[in-house]
Amino acid sequence: MPAKMVDKLYKTLTAALSGNLRDLKGDPITDHLVATVMGCSSFLQTLTNRPLTSFVVGKKYFMFEHNGKTSRPVNIALFNTKPTAAALKKVISCDVEGMTSDAITKIVYTAIQSYCCCTDLLKSGDQKTPGTFFEILIGHMVSKSLGVNPERQIRVPTLDLDITIPTDFVFDLGPGKNRVHLPIKISTRERVVQVWAHQRVLDGMHGVARFKGILVAMAEMNKQKDISVAEVCLPNQWMAYQMYIAQMFRVYYLDIPTPYLKLKETYPFIQVKPFGDFFSEIDKIEKSGVGGA
Amino acid sequence: MPAKMVDKLYKTLTAALSGNLRDLKGDPITDHLVATVMGCSSFLQTLTNRPLTSFVVGKKYFMFEHNGKTSRPVNIALFNTKPTAAALKKVISCDVEGMTSDAITKIVYTAIQSYCCCTDLLKSGDQKTPGTFFEILIGHMVSKSLGVNPERQIRVPTLDLDITIPTDFVFDLGPGKNRVHLPIKISTRERVVQVWAHQRVLDGMHGVARFKGILVAMAEMNKQKDISVAEVCLPNQWMAYQMYIAQMFRVYYLDIPTPYLKLKETYPFIQVKPFGDFFSEIDKIEKSGVGGA
Repeated sequence: MPAKMVDKLYKTLTAALSGNLRDLKGDPITDHLVATVMGCSSFLQTLTNRPLTSFVVGKKYFMFEHNGKTSRPVNIALFNTKPTAAALKKVISCDVEGMTSDAITKIVYTAIQSYCCCTDLLKSGDQKTPGTFFEILIGHMVSKSLGVNPERQIRVPTLDLDITIPTDFVFDLGPGKNRVHLPIKISTRERVVQVWAHQRVLDGMHGVARFKGILVAMAEMNKQKDISVAEVCLPNQWMAYQMYIAQMFRVYYLDIPTPYLKLKETYPFIQVKPFGDFFSEIDKIEKSGVGGA
Repeated sequence: MPAKMVDKLYKTLTAALSGNLRDLKGDPITDHLVATVMGCSSFLQTLTNRPLTSFVVGKKYFMFEHNGKTSRPVNIALFNTKPTAAALKKVISCDVEGMTSDAITKIVYTAIQSYCCCTDLLKSGDQKTPGTFFEILIGHMVSKSLGVNPERQIRVPTLDLDITIPTDFVFDLGPGKNRVHLPIKISTRERVVQVWAHQRVLDGMHGVARFKGILVAMAEMNKQKDISVAEVCLPNQWMAYQMYIAQMFRVYYLDIPTPYLKLKETYPFIQVKPFGDFFSEIDKIEKSGVGGA
């Protein structure tokens, strides 16, 4: 598959969304996502891959190779080299009843990595579309689950001026329910403080925890010289942000960094979980109170 | 002057600072800064420059050209094409008594642009050293003025754990005085939310306004296709951050963006001023109270 093919699949997907995310939760988006992932996966199935030395205890990684280029690291335990369109469609359309959190997480991880590895290998300097693809996929699944499409800007209630500012996805779930603030990042690094800061702005404008803050991230990998791989984590900063800036309700990862997994065991008890857990927690997201977990 | 020469001047400067900014306010740093700027300036004096179409009302810009490369935009009214070592040394060592704010701002602007334009023209993909040079120059002048060297990490006072986290420059001015939180950025763009977020963490850890937050930035220019130049500003976001995240005490610019200049006229009255004003406000920074301006 040439680079053009990936471009075409991606453009069909984003074109379906043009006009302000008109229907991010709609069925056509499921179909475009499945088609894009299947196209990418069938290309990756023609390639060789090479194991990386992993400095992450208990996790093994490889990378794909093609024409002298290499992909980002792929977690062997989470990546399905031969996903079926039926399995992808079932999960991406949120028909996950009876599935384990692990099984959901693996399919979603596979879908995202298939697209990201293809762009790593087939395109040059494309930092942007993997992030957008990730945002569309997660945004689609979350909005389908919540039954509402998101907004991307919000009115600031000042006494003097009428101001709107751009935000990450925010959802209005209707009367009697919380609202949702959903930042989506492939990796976070030191930019993560933005997530807590935007949550703080929402808390300040609309009341503490009026919006439940849910960060969804992919992984925090650092590949060194095409040989080894490590996780880049800042757990102390995360604790300070959760204590002093605002309180994120959940952080979901596809490939959870080990240092973050432990954050829920000690104060301030940041709830970092695999993305597959989202589907069994929708009720809490919609209805838990200001102090609720 | 070849690229090597700029590298050598820069390395002498940073070497003088090695070992954790041992004496950022010290006289040797003044001398290295002056030598670096004079070296860069004499190279720039051998070059031609070309005017840019300015979309910024009341401001004119040009760029330097060399071997097919072009520099960032330079504000004609603020840039001195032939600075003297004596004038640079006087200002960089903070011997500014009797000088106007304008005159100080111009010398500092000239010093920074001389280094930045040289790296634009002589090096490839060097995003980092201009930011570090700017941070050293401003950090030197502020610490000399306050009479104290800064720290770059801070202890988080938790009941359970002993945590230190990295910060921008922070200054302990001693008993009876405020402390200072000094982020320094060539340009801010949407990353600026970090500044307010870090101020919020300090407020949360040590009490509101225990640290006076002072952001120093260069400019917010966007050069398009080597033809024109515009300012990229987000005044609505700044207002929301100042209302809901934390309160920055001052924002100083070398080349103030017009939309930010107006922020001090309406609530929440963000005090954005030319950098030269800093020297007449040191007393306020050291001693004003929680609500004080």
